[in-house]
Amino acid sequence: MLKVAVDAMGGDFAPEINIIGAYEAALDNEIEIILVGNEDTIEDFLQEKKQLKGRITVFHTEDQILMDENVSTAIRRKDTSMRKAVELVKAGKADAVLSAGNSGAMMALSFLLLGKLPNVDRPAIATVMPCLKGHFILLDAGANVDCKAEHLLQFAFMGDAYHKALFNSKSPRIALLSIGEEGSKGNEATKEAFKLLQETNLNFIGNIEGKDIFFGSADVVVCDGFVGNIVLKVGEGLAEALMKMLKRDIAELITGRIGYMMIKPAVKSFRKKVDYSEYGGALLLGINGTSLICHGRSSAKAIKNAIKVASEMAKKEIYRRIAESLKPTEDIDEGKNTVNGLICS
Amino acid sequence: MLKVAVDAMGGDFAPEINIIGAYEAALDNEIEIILVGNEDTIEDFLQEKKQLKGRITVFHTEDQILMDENVSTAIRRKDTSMRKAVELVKAGKADAVLSAGNSGAMMALSFLLLGKLPNVDRPAIATVMPCLKGHFILLDAGANVDCKAEHLLQFAFMGDAYHKALFNSKSPRIALLSIGEEGSKGNEATKEAFKLLQETNLNFIGNIEGKDIFFGSADVVVCDGFVGNIVLKVGEGLAEALMKMLKRDIAELITGRIGYMMIKPAVKSFRKKVDYSEYGGALLLGINGTSLICHGRSSAKAIKNAIKVASEMAKKEIYRRIAESLKPTEDIDEGKNTVNGLICS
Repeated sequence: MLKVAVDAMGGDFAPEINIIGAYEAALDNEIEIILVGNEDTIEDFLQEKKQLKGRITVFHTEDQILMDENVSTAIRRKDTSMRKAVELVKAGKADAVLSAGNSGAMMALSFLLLGKLPNVDRPAIATVMPCLKGHFILLDAGANVDCKAEHLLQFAFMGDAYHKALFNSKSPRIALLSIGEEGSKGNEATKEAFKLLQETNLNFIGNIEGKDIFFGSADVVVCDGFVGNIVLKVGEGLAEALMKMLKRDIAELITGRIGYMMIKPAVKSFRKKVDYSEYGGALLLGINGTSLICHGRSSAKAIKNAIKVASEMAKKEIYRRIAESLKPTEDIDEGKNTVNGLICS
Repeated sequence: MLKVAVDAMGGDFAPEINIIGAYEAALDNEIEIILVGNEDTIEDFLQEKKQLKGRITVFHTEDQILMDENVSTAIRRKDTSMRKAVELVKAGKADAVLSAGNSGAMMALSFLLLGKLPNVDRPAIATVMPCLKGHFILLDAGANVDCKAEHLLQFAFMGDAYHKALFNSKSPRIALLSIGEEGSKGNEATKEAFKLLQETNLNFIGNIEGKDIFFGSADVVVCDGFVGNIVLKVGEGLAEALMKMLKRDIAELITGRIGYMMIKPAVKSFRKKVDYSEYGGALLLGINGTSLICHGRSSAKAIKNAIKVASEMAKKEIYRRIAESLKPTEDIDEGKNTVNGLICS
């Protein structure tokens, strides 16, 4: 049975939400969960859920990292719940780890303790986003704010491998997020990355504009972490704001109330589709292990789903597949198939 | 009466859309319009609208700039409709100019022919966007892809002056688009700009995250043109995709059809609110004159509204107000009120 370490003390609503999420994940799935954090606090919340005691264990830590704490000092403390949770994966005592806490610290600790894969300069955060035709992967969603073209190229390779593993796809369409379809449009990094990507054997379909990403025009959308994080959050905020605007307009109609009742199941199913908590956290790509970063405002459902995703990702050993796709070639036959020491498969 | 020069040959649906838009703008408003482009083509479309002949004149040009043409070569040609339209403003024969054509070329020609304001390094594109509580101004929306902190600072000053002129506001809330609320979050340029902005007398409210912009948390949202253009287009695409997803879900319900009929007026009024064509183009800030860039896919309504906005902006002489707000101080009393040679307030 796969084991998932959960930073019980991370997130805006910790530890309650993490414990409830873990409890529900253990109920529904063949997973063992290790809740890492203050034993007393956790036990208080767990006491009524004794039947799961065998599937949920507690790993005690005294300390915890706060949401807005400075990353460089936070990751140095040795007994934080986040650090201990990541260490469990490093020690082989857990197969995956997740935290809804300080995402910068989670990234740094995963990087530091699990190490990055060979040929990866910068690990990236990959999020699965809903669109008109299913889903697409957006990366980097916030790990690297200032990126060079070579980093974007690596993100493309990692996104490609992730998409193949996650959706059993053969040749995902890789696109570069930019401000025009032509390769000449964009900032310095994207213009250079466009050229590099053209030289690979990836199914690179060129630049994609912001207006097209939610129509499913690409399977993997590559950008730097500053842009990716803003896109992610604009999407989240806009979906919420639009629904509020629409509801307000509906409420002003005489027939609005009854009309809304009639379409309510559709609004519900729609909400479920665009709800980040359905997708359960973002995977850190380029790390030598399985580490998920969850939204700070994660609900119990989001944590539950993230635990499930974490165990699936660990089972599929995505990180090994990424390592495979980034392996340097020893046998260069045409030269063309190698970019920056990467096999372009 | 104010005169607006319209590049009749610019845009995906030129010249028809521009001519219809101009016609409707002239019908509704006290504006004189100069349609710049191929006389024969324009006259063909105009022939049935003779009653407006006095209010709409045609300025003939043989050449035109194509949508995806290389900017540096396109702007060198002397007889293009876009160039001639801008030249009319330069010569004082028109008060404002607009084009739905190649936006890079329109920006470059406005910059080149009208000149930039003193103390402006980079003109910026400012768009008015709808949100839960009215509107906010986003800039730069695509003029400058790689920006330094000083450029972001200038955008903030220009956005401040624009908001004051457009909405008669006293002290618009200026925010920097970033990936965290703290000043320590962001890329190199935003982190540096955060510090510079703190030293000004602008009503700088700090960083804003993507999820908050559509809730009306700031009046002016500052970012580089790469990020701004992506945010603009993500917003446009997502609103469209979400409505499609929702409609699809509604269509699957038995009560969906009748329910939808009941809320339809709300959907319509909502659509109007989020429809870019209601806002009629984006103003180029930092230029010594009034120049608007319209969406390439502009409808006749969008052109009509843009012409109206252009004449209002010209009437308010926004560019003079911006010049005023950027004027270097000669009398520095505290030092603190001056950043990079700009008066701060």
